[in-house]
Amino acid sequence: MEHTRIKEILRNEEFVGKEVIVKGWVRTFRNNQFVAINDGSTLNNIQAVVDFENTDEKLLKRITTGASIRVKGQVIESLGKGQSVEIKVSDVSILGDSDPEKFPLQPKKHSLEFLREIAHLRFRTGTFNAIFKVRHALAFAVHQFFNERDFVYLHTPIITGSDAEGAGEMFRVTTLDFDNTPRTESGAVDFKEDFFGKSTNLTVSGQLEGELGAMALGNIYTFGPTFRAENSNTTRHLAEFWMIEPEMAFYELEDNMDLAEDLLKYVIKYVLETCPDEIEFLKNRLLEEEKNKPANERSEMNLLEKLTFVINNEFERVTYTDAIEILKRSKPNQKKQFKYSIDEWGADLQSEHERYLVEKHFKKPVILTDYPAEIKSFYMKQNDIDANGHKTVRAMDILFPGIGEMVGGSQREENLDKLLARMAEVGIEAEEIDWFLDTRRFGTAPHSGFGVGFERLILFVTGMTNIRDVIPFPRYPKNAEF
Amino acid sequence: MEHTRIKEILRNEEFVGKEVIVKGWVRTFRNNQFVAINDGSTLNNIQAVVDFENTDEKLLKRITTGASIRVKGQVIESLGKGQSVEIKVSDVSILGDSDPEKFPLQPKKHSLEFLREIAHLRFRTGTFNAIFKVRHALAFAVHQFFNERDFVYLHTPIITGSDAEGAGEMFRVTTLDFDNTPRTESGAVDFKEDFFGKSTNLTVSGQLEGELGAMALGNIYTFGPTFRAENSNTTRHLAEFWMIEPEMAFYELEDNMDLAEDLLKYVIKYVLETCPDEIEFLKNRLLEEEKNKPANERSEMNLLEKLTFVINNEFERVTYTDAIEILKRSKPNQKKQFKYSIDEWGADLQSEHERYLVEKHFKKPVILTDYPAEIKSFYMKQNDIDANGHKTVRAMDILFPGIGEMVGGSQREENLDKLLARMAEVGIEAEEIDWFLDTRRFGTAPHSGFGVGFERLILFVTGMTNIRDVIPFPRYPKNAEF
Repeated sequence: MEHTRIKEILRNEEFVGKEVIVKGWVRTFRNNQFVAINDGSTLNNIQAVVDFENTDEKLLKRITTGASIRVKGQVIESLGKGQSVEIKVSDVSILGDSDPEKFPLQPKKHSLEFLREIAHLRFRTGTFNAIFKVRHALAFAVHQFFNERDFVYLHTPIITGSDAEGAGEMFRVTTLDFDNTPRTESGAVDFKEDFFGKSTNLTVSGQLEGELGAMALGNIYTFGPTFRAENSNTTRHLAEFWMIEPEMAFYELEDNMDLAEDLLKYVIKYVLETCPDEIEFLKNRLLEEEKNKPANERSEMNLLEKLTFVINNEFERVTYTDAIEILKRSKPNQKKQFKYSIDEWGADLQSEHERYLVEKHFKKPVILTDYPAEIKSFYMKQNDIDANGHKTVRAMDILFPGIGEMVGGSQREENLDKLLARMAEVGIEAEEIDWFLDTRRFGTAPHSGFGVGFERLILFVTGMTNIRDVIPFPRYPKNAEF
Repeated sequence: MEHTRIKEILRNEEFVGKEVIVKGWVRTFRNNQFVAINDGSTLNNIQAVVDFENTDEKLLKRITTGASIRVKGQVIESLGKGQSVEIKVSDVSILGDSDPEKFPLQPKKHSLEFLREIAHLRFRTGTFNAIFKVRHALAFAVHQFFNERDFVYLHTPIITGSDAEGAGEMFRVTTLDFDNTPRTESGAVDFKEDFFGKSTNLTVSGQLEGELGAMALGNIYTFGPTFRAENSNTTRHLAEFWMIEPEMAFYELEDNMDLAEDLLKYVIKYVLETCPDEIEFLKNRLLEEEKNKPANERSEMNLLEKLTFVINNEFERVTYTDAIEILKRSKPNQKKQFKYSIDEWGADLQSEHERYLVEKHFKKPVILTDYPAEIKSFYMKQNDIDANGHKTVRAMDILFPGIGEMVGGSQREENLDKLLARMAEVGIEAEEIDWFLDTRRFGTAPHSGFGVGFERLILFVTGMTNIRDVIPFPRYPKNAEF
């Protein structure tokens, strides 16, 4: 390896005075002399100063935005503004040209919409360099958090024959042919002839399999892709996204909340410590973007303040029942400003209600617990019926400002009979998930878990607002480019 | 959290004399007195000694294999063989029963075949506890290796509209209905009506998208699920498996080999350091298994020796051309013992040839380079035609004893014209991967990458021989259980 990465040169003063070789892409070339080079290792460019009077003119003409070049030279302290060191070039060569007539990423401001269309090139911008560095840091922090706590990273299956989780519409996975579909005698599609000998889908959640792991290995987590075939063309939904799902034997709801809060604080703290340049860049990007908004729509805190606030404050823990009371009495409810008015216990909370609780009432992340059983999944632990006759479950959702639900989890129903009764109510056949029920048949125990939508976490930490901008190649209705 | 994990108690002498609460599953219960409890945190059990004379007989009867229990008691030094500490129980309660007539995992030796059928319960055995702890450690080590080197973890898409990589048969992903399939006027399936507006599949490799990342962010890696719809019912193939694929801008073949060798040694070393109990257990398991084999089929080295050998020795780097000469002159070739005789340059190497080179000739991991272009992928960098008129590419495969190909990689062809010419030869339409070609149009540069089959790595490190035993829920033809 003959070259040195720009990040190394910029962070290590020992390079001053030394000769280095740098390879990277030209971001700008000014005055036939100053080349800003970026090699991806950092969002910061290094300035290379070319001795243009002694360099072949033809070669100088090939130093265009997007071209990849190799420069050799001495690292010297810089007199220019905005950089501490620069390279005094003794030799420059072109590795790959970039036709300025054709290269779409000329040095000017591009809209996020435009960059989404060239997702394969947007990594070459400062914004996306920063976003994907933060995404990396968050992913690594997740693994480190769980590894430090002796959790086992469990790769639950992506292709699944089960659809009991019921979290949403599913994609079919098949090798059957639409033109010569095998049929049973009754004329139905014969999935016995399909690759797996039955109908299979892409997973919507690794939770059920995760529980199998937890009820043997103790504490496990998944971190993998999950899928929803929902026709949602919004800034908040993807057809393919990554989810983190820990499951813990012997954890009750309180332990579950503690772990989730610790996890979120840990990973945000990790990003603040390891990505200060990226957060500074993204903070300024957001300030710039919000300049165009009316004052009352701008964030009260800047990105750095918001992240610091989250790690320094305890999340508010409130029961659904208490939250309903707060909402009922709230100004927007009294003044009929909510689109969905909150009149009685049992209502499913809409985004407007969650935002009110988090952004207006508590002004911090909120953990809502003990939701009505009716609006939650079958596998959640049932509370005793309360004095008002309300049936609730040991659910917990963590709501974040600007994001809404960041985490959804619960203590799990470990009692086989109660679980079967609830399954019957919602129409899930016991045979379908007989293997899952074995955890309750053989040595059942209290246990809990939750899921974190990884892209929502990245949205919060980067201050971006469209989920398609925080995953390398977003998949959504009518789009599977690259 | 009122309980302490068994791993903590066993590794920390400070617990001696202290009172603890332990929750876990009963592995065995001897003499109405000695309960071996496992909570998954370690493959080792802790012994709890029950004061049976002062414990309710009905309760004692419920302490059966597989039941989950809570015990409270004092940690004391153990006089028994095989453990340093045990718990003198003052209180025991049952969290979940396990009917001994029905629980399939009674304390006796079970075959791996049987355990595969109850994959949802096999995590509760020592063997699978060890395997999945090692799997976790390897996964974490992979992330740590790349994080330390400032690589970006890039989540390349799972659902893809491209099939240019051509690594194998693909699974279709669709929301179309077999019964009411939309058709174009000509009668073909109208994939414009499918969820993504075109025909989509599960990815076979993240490489092409990985290259897009590398040509902007510098060094990236993927670590995610990949899929092959091949009807291979073998101990070496899965329909769904995990792959690690780094791509590095400005890396040439030598750099690529160095990185791959460093990675493999790093992760094996990490396992030896962090999982000594698991490796010891798996070593003994393998010795036990091999006792039944004829002496000449047994491993020359035990598992620990084999792993230590790999991290302490340089991999042998040999060109394909030299390897062919070695094979031609080899005893098994001369004596016609190879099923596929090696007669001339150009032959694709079979498993028997790879094994000969690795296990008999060099007796260590081998990196084979510069394969014939004909038998390798279109995107590999073309060498100049050699004196014998041979066309080769800058490929490298790393071959491991007992495993065969552990890593496949290459320097990539960065020259647009050469790449297009090769694509035309093998029949890949440029339009199909126009986005990929942009990396060669705008600032192309030398770059390299490779792929590691994660389950093959786990096979090697655990000494297991069936790939279905090193992934939680294996997917293969006619099987997508759990």
